[in-house]
Amino acid sequence: MTLKVAIAGATGYTGGELLRLLFLHPNVEVVSVTSEQSAGEPLIKRLPSLKGYYNLKLEQFDPKKIAEKADLVFLCLSHTKAMEPVRQLLDLGKKVIDLSADYRLRSASLYESWYQSPHTHPELLKEGVYGLTEVYRDEIARSNFIANPGCYPTGALLLLSPFLKAGCIDASREIIIDSKSGISGAGRAPSAKTHFTEVNEGMVAYNIGVHRHLPEIEQEIRRIGGKKRSVLFTPYLLPVNRGILTTIYLPLNGKFTQKKLESVLDVYRGEPFIRRADGAPNLAHIRGSNFCDLAVFATPGGRTAILMSAIDNLVKGAAGQAIQNMNVMMGWDDRLGLISPGLFP
Amino acid sequence: MTLKVAIAGATGYTGGELLRLLFLHPNVEVVSVTSEQSAGEPLIKRLPSLKGYYNLKLEQFDPKKIAEKADLVFLCLSHTKAMEPVRQLLDLGKKVIDLSADYRLRSASLYESWYQSPHTHPELLKEGVYGLTEVYRDEIARSNFIANPGCYPTGALLLLSPFLKAGCIDASREIIIDSKSGISGAGRAPSAKTHFTEVNEGMVAYNIGVHRHLPEIEQEIRRIGGKKRSVLFTPYLLPVNRGILTTIYLPLNGKFTQKKLESVLDVYRGEPFIRRADGAPNLAHIRGSNFCDLAVFATPGGRTAILMSAIDNLVKGAAGQAIQNMNVMMGWDDRLGLISPGLFP
Amino acid sequence: MTLKVAIAGATGYTGGELLRLLFLHPNVEVVSVTSEQSAGEPLIKRLPSLKGYYNLKLEQFDPKKIAEKADLVFLCLSHTKAMEPVRQLLDLGKKVIDLSADYRLRSASLYESWYQSPHTHPELLKEGVYGLTEVYRDEIARSNFIANPGCYPTGALLLLSPFLKAGCIDASREIIIDSKSGISGAGRAPSAKTHFTEVNEGMVAYNIGVHRHLPEIEQEIRRIGGKKRSVLFTPYLLPVNRGILTTIYLPLNGKFTQKKLESVLDVYRGEPFIRRADGAPNLAHIRGSNFCDLAVFATPGGRTAILMSAIDNLVKGAAGQAIQNMNVMMGWDDRLGLISPGLFP
Amino acid sequence: MTLKVAIAGATGYTGGELLRLLFLHPNVEVVSVTSEQSAGEPLIKRLPSLKGYYNLKLEQFDPKKIAEKADLVFLCLSHTKAMEPVRQLLDLGKKVIDLSADYRLRSASLYESWYQSPHTHPELLKEGVYGLTEVYRDEIARSNFIANPGCYPTGALLLLSPFLKAGCIDASREIIIDSKSGISGAGRAPSAKTHFTEVNEGMVAYNIGVHRHLPEIEQEIRRIGGKKRSVLFTPYLLPVNRGILTTIYLPLNGKFTQKKLESVLDVYRGEPFIRRADGAPNLAHIRGSNFCDLAVFATPGGRTAILMSAIDNLVKGAAGQAIQNMNVMMGWDDRLGLISPGLFP
Repeated sequence: MTLKVAIAGATGYTGGELLRLLFLHPNVEVVSVTSEQSAGEPLIKRLPSLKGYYNLKLEQFDPKKIAEKADLVFLCLSHTKAMEPVRQLLDLGKKVIDLSADYRLRSASLYESWYQSPHTHPELLKEGVYGLTEVYRDEIARSNFIANPGCYPTGALLLLSPFLKAGCIDASREIIIDSKSGISGAGRAPSAKTHFTEVNEGMVAYNIGVHRHLPEIEQEIRRIGGKKRSVLFTPYLLPVNRGILTTIYLPLNGKFTQKKLESVLDVYRGEPFIRRADGAPNLAHIRGSNFCDLAVFATPGGRTAILMSAIDNLVKGAAGQAIQNMNVMMGWDDRLGLISPGLFP
Repeated sequence: MTLKVAIAGATGYTGGELLRLLFLHPNVEVVSVTSEQSAGEPLIKRLPSLKGYYNLKLEQFDPKKIAEKADLVFLCLSHTKAMEPVRQLLDLGKKVIDLSADYRLRSASLYESWYQSPHTHPELLKEGVYGLTEVYRDEIARSNFIANPGCYPTGALLLLSPFLKAGCIDASREIIIDSKSGISGAGRAPSAKTHFTEVNEGMVAYNIGVHRHLPEIEQEIRRIGGKKRSVLFTPYLLPVNRGILTTIYLPLNGKFTQKKLESVLDVYRGEPFIRRADGAPNLAHIRGSNFCDLAVFATPGGRTAILMSAIDNLVKGAAGQAIQNMNVMMGWDDRLGLISPGLFP
Repeated sequence: MTLKVAIAGATGYTGGELLRLLFLHPNVEVVSVTSEQSAGEPLIKRLPSLKGYYNLKLEQFDPKKIAEKADLVFLCLSHTKAMEPVRQLLDLGKKVIDLSADYRLRSASLYESWYQSPHTHPELLKEGVYGLTEVYRDEIARSNFIANPGCYPTGALLLLSPFLKAGCIDASREIIIDSKSGISGAGRAPSAKTHFTEVNEGMVAYNIGVHRHLPEIEQEIRRIGGKKRSVLFTPYLLPVNRGILTTIYLPLNGKFTQKKLESVLDVYRGEPFIRRADGAPNLAHIRGSNFCDLAVFATPGGRTAILMSAIDNLVKGAAGQAIQNMNVMMGWDDRLGLISPGLFP
Repeated sequence: MTLKVAIAGATGYTGGELLRLLFLHPNVEVVSVTSEQSAGEPLIKRLPSLKGYYNLKLEQFDPKKIAEKADLVFLCLSHTKAMEPVRQLLDLGKKVIDLSADYRLRSASLYESWYQSPHTHPELLKEGVYGLTEVYRDEIARSNFIANPGCYPTGALLLLSPFLKAGCIDASREIIIDSKSGISGAGRAPSAKTHFTEVNEGMVAYNIGVHRHLPEIEQEIRRIGGKKRSVLFTPYLLPVNRGILTTIYLPLNGKFTQKKLESVLDVYRGEPFIRRADGAPNLAHIRGSNFCDLAVFATPGGRTAILMSAIDNLVKGAAGQAIQNMNVMMGWDDRLGLISPGLFP
């Protein structure tokens, strides 16, 4: 059986990454790719690395037309642009995986305050499943509509989730999340913030306390752990192409030895894309792959744990997790299309 | 049918790259990996990016033992170290692809003068087929023993070969080869030359006129074109992980228009891993793939052509071409195991 | 004595570099800095590295107002924008160093064909002195108006000039110039071509045969050597912040040994910013300094020489050379303001 | 008056940086440079960027001989190697600034447990002044012997010191220090950890909880604040040449607004090398300079502050601070030799 998929917004980094990965997927055919700015051009003009793999022409995005060709649509649009198309595509009976931020927050007012824009389809906010595969696997399997997580939230929540479920967090202290991201996380549109000579050989934090991934992280901490927790979230731009290295300083409600901390991560046993790192996770070891490498470190007092994860922001943090979610939705093995090892060096 | 292969010298970059690519090969099983320094350790200890893909333990390299397990052996050893094992493995009826420099030069005395070491098996020098796949495809198909080309020679000869065959070179001027290589070309052993802070944000030429890939290039120019040609070869270290960008200033024996030059490259029609670049080839577009992107530019006078190629030195310049050669030897489609698109960005 | 200088276009990389260097100049006071886009803001808002060094506010560029404050004006404006102000400032009796391309070509029609814009002050084209310090030192000393050379031309012409003067070039072959430039050469305005993730870990040639620095190089080859020469010029973008590494394959009209080639460079004896490299020049060794490191390599046939130079495109290729020219104009030691060693690593 | 100085261990990155900076120092002459491995060679052979600045030959390090030439000696030796020479040079009446770790810890047993080596001169441990200039200015001014701080401790303690003195720390929670360092911090000796292709495009934490700079940080927290505090210290290797970006999550013993937090930093008013960053500090803005850029951010609850600093590990984190200490010892302006602005881009 071949699933026909379309990618709306195919020329950004997330769209390009979907195309790179889907080429290896045995059950999928990409039937349509769209681009607002480059419609009419050959796809490979904008993504020359894909020459020889795809022979598609970029189209204007028209949900109705795409629905005639595709069974499932990946939306790689900037925020606010995905709201309406999701409604249309679902109404037309299609499966949708939305990689934008439009349906990640389950509260319209929260969305509106963080994204400074009204939400036109609040009725869908509870319908979409937050696509953190390892956490919401069952809901994803039953759903037609996935709100694919942000890259920072993926790196942070895969670390936190086992500890939230195990109930070992001390409520009186903040959960501190210190996340270093490669530049592709900022997208493909040029800006002063991503200009080579401004970024290279530098490192800087940004949007401290006001990054839009913060409410997403807070929401999921609350949903997974059952309680609101105070979170401090510090994101940085790191002069590498890909990868998010997340360090979490986790307040514990008791003394935890190294062994006890590691046992909490046992919940991931059997998960094909969670690896226990040998030592500290390194961005160099997950480049281009869908893995999330994890580690946990006990501290002298035993009252705070240091958690670390490494993901490729474009793969596990975006396109790879979207494909994994598609696989779960279709009842396929998680690994289809995602088996290529990371690029090292 | 499954071919059992072994990799001797599996923990260097070339060996690691073979493992990365072979994981996707439908007809191959890696049954043995060796390492002089890390024998006894799990493979993934030295190549953490492969965790979850391979469960092998590194062994001491013993040709006889390996011959009991494997049908084909990739030798990723430093020069002089492959001479003897090739003889042994061939005598034991195995197929061998040697990624070292030991059998690339077809003259023992030339080898001895460039590598400062006696050649112990000159009788094999003519037996081995120089594994420039697109050029020696038929010989490779009939052979059990491939001397896999060096990375610089691959980038240069894929550009030159069509022009050599077409007989359009002016003998009175030098062929100028200006090649910029990523640091992985220098291998995995640390040295002052590859220390991050010595290399990063710099660029420098090295071994001008005395690089060991020069006689290899000269030999193949002579064999492919039927005549000795003067060559100037300038290699550089470039602060990127992967890739060789080669520019050739080619003296022509007549006036060539852009169209005529491009038509010379038509000999590559049907070759799955040769792409015509749209504009100048970019290392960013072949990263991690087996492609060789080519371009040719006519110049005002029409008497000199500018040729450019981009390859990933670890793939088309080493492990990828070795796998392509294995595929040809086995009568398989060239693309088996090599279909994963390059990583961009 | 203190010279009062102004910088028009102070927030780009060239302007910033002038400010960095001039802070160390014992005889200069920067009295005015202008910016089209950021007028009214503190300078350090746009150039935070200069906090603590300058307390200036960015102004709108108004030649008359600036002439009231400054004795000498550095123009760091994009091409076409400097034409008019040069006329005005000279008429007001000021000294001008123009870092734009507006007065580098001495022919209005050549300018117009390469820059696609009419030249409004052709009468000044012969008045401006081309500021290649080591070559036009005497004219610079007598002039009030310097057209500061482009970065690529500086790297190429400092190599070529001694050989042009020595008359050792073979007219029947092209001079081949292969130049690799760091990204700051493309300026501070963000674009797809300079977006971190498009550039990093890549390398690509651009504007082959049609780069605007080509006519500038050709003009000076003709002026310095007394004859028109055929030139092939290939520029590349290199993923480093600073530096141009230029390799020239020079056709010689006789056999030249290594010793003879080196003796040609003796004309630079006494020049404070020309260094003979020990081996091949490395961008890592001139980062941030005004040096031009040179090397020359004889080749087997002796009929072609390989010349190499390394400069920092923002220093010797722009701001540093501009300051050196100012020093010459003022009758000061070349080194004033330029004595800080390069940053290594 | 000219101070004659010697540098023992001049060919490492710290020694090279001292030479780069001291060239601009109006009151200093470098009279001797030593190197264990390269004695007899010209200095510029090992540090080509300094060609044209110094004409010195590398010598074997012999404290007595050096004492005949120099008034002050900078020791840039690896740990354990500086112990004895400090004693000898002080006995010979020389001033000493030791950039090794040998005299930073004031307890011999602490040194011995962290450096796995006996301390042969415990009597000097209290005599040496810990050279954190802004904190121990008066002691430094009176001393002949400075133990120059480690790079991580400098970045962390300059942030912490005002808060320790102000007594605003909550003792029940850990001080969390998350520090990202450029690769030059690992020195100039090649290793797997600093091999370009292992490090580039990656990021990884190391020595979590066991880094040798931890006891140094803890000691100074205790000395400056008068009390022992629990510290978690996580260092990372960052793929840039220079710079340490330190983030501290500081537990406060009360609610602090942004304004109140900022006022704590007012103690640095008048310090020439402490800058308040406009937003978050960026490594790109202090590259090559002696500045420490600081910022502080209040958090929603007000009970934890986020502190950030950016320093160049080779300048403020090593050679620059050493020169600043020399200036203080000599009664000179702190800024002598340190006035060159940072390199941007």
